[in-house]
Amino acid sequence: MKSFRKELWFNIPQRRGFENITREVSDCVRESGVTEGLVLVNAMHITASVFINDDESGLHHDYEKWLEELAPHEPISRYRHNNTGEDNGDAHLKRQIMGREVVVAISSGALDLGPWEQVFYGEFDGRRRKRVLVKVIGE
Amino acid sequence: MKSFRKELWFNIPQRRGFENITREVSDCVRESGVTEGLVLVNAMHITASVFINDDESGLHHDYEKWLEELAPHEPISRYRHNNTGEDNGDAHLKRQIMGREVVVAISSGALDLGPWEQVFYGEFDGRRRKRVLVKVIGE
Amino acid sequence: MKSFRKELWFNIPQRRGFENITREVSDCVRESGVTEGLVLVNAMHITASVFINDDESGLHHDYEKWLEELAPHEPISRYRHNNTGEDNGDAHLKRQIMGREVVVAISSGALDLGPWEQVFYGEFDGRRRKRVLVKVIGE
Repeated sequence: MKSFRKELWFNIPQRRGFENITREVSDCVRESGVTEGLVLVNAMHITASVFINDDESGLHHDYEKWLEELAPHEPISRYRHNNTGEDNGDAHLKRQIMGREVVVAISSGALDLGPWEQVFYGEFDGRRRKRVLVKVIGE
Repeated sequence: MKSFRKELWFNIPQRRGFENITREVSDCVRESGVTEGLVLVNAMHITASVFINDDESGLHHDYEKWLEELAPHEPISRYRHNNTGEDNGDAHLKRQIMGREVVVAISSGALDLGPWEQVFYGEFDGRRRKRVLVKVIGE
Repeated sequence: MKSFRKELWFNIPQRRGFENITREVSDCVRESGVTEGLVLVNAMHITASVFINDDESGLHHDYEKWLEELAPHEPISRYRHNNTGEDNGDAHLKRQIMGREVVVAISSGALDLGPWEQVFYGEFDGRRRKRVLVKVIGE
């Protein structure tokens, strides 16, 4: 069995944003030499997500608006977590909707994705360096 | 290490619906010959889900009603994604709540599920052929 | 390839609660002898979750309040599932938001978690014995 590990670093300049990381994940799979296996891609931070959906700017606008309706950033006092001095209570909730991780099959040496599937880093408390873990296992 | 890959195809006649695919996934595990490992089951489409819950029609009605409250299909104009000519903006949101994938343990050659756990395909933009990927790795 | 399987049992005295299980999962990884691989941790019940987030009591209060807003326990008659004689319709919905499972990388013989990542059992229909499956594969 082969395994491979890499951290991808991000610094999203706004509080929230989505970044397509499909190519970086695909590069990890190639570098791993694994042709049949699984790749786990997970946010290493608890106010960020890794998810799979469409690379379409209208949809990303819809996600932003919808998550803000489901778990508004303000008022800050809405969240008891913010009593710790943080202002990111909402980010911990938004991340549960969008998920922490994805697991993708590796077949014939490549990411085994459907035609519109793209892997995204979802940031809900940005403006600082944060990272994603890519772990590949297989043969 | 062994690996196995199969696509399951669906054509749900309504816009939305849930289909129990536990037997199909179980058949894949048997066919793979893997006795200890993991099976990944994921929607290959970004307006569909694979999830695990109860096979109870009242619950499925509750999911349908609840998801429609959280991300209503109409008005179509509610979602900027629909400006692309699509009418499935809501389906991309509903799928994030229900999830893209499940990973299930394989132990002693069978799906290692709790007593009420059943695997479902969740369709949110049906009336066309769509597919699920089953990927098994292990020994 | 090595594999390892263990069930963790819980009996949360209230209907809902969160319990940090990071140490138990970490012990499984050590016991497995796997140094590079993946660990799947999943609820074996469909009214419970395994998720990763912060071990901060204010945040757990926020989750409790937020989930109760998104899928209220009462009135019981709100959920058709409860016509079966159950009163846990809400628990099946809350669990979809928080998720069934996490997959965590194992690197150099340890859980490969970010600095604040902690693994939790999330109970939404407690006051009885329920269990979580830990499955490790790797080398």
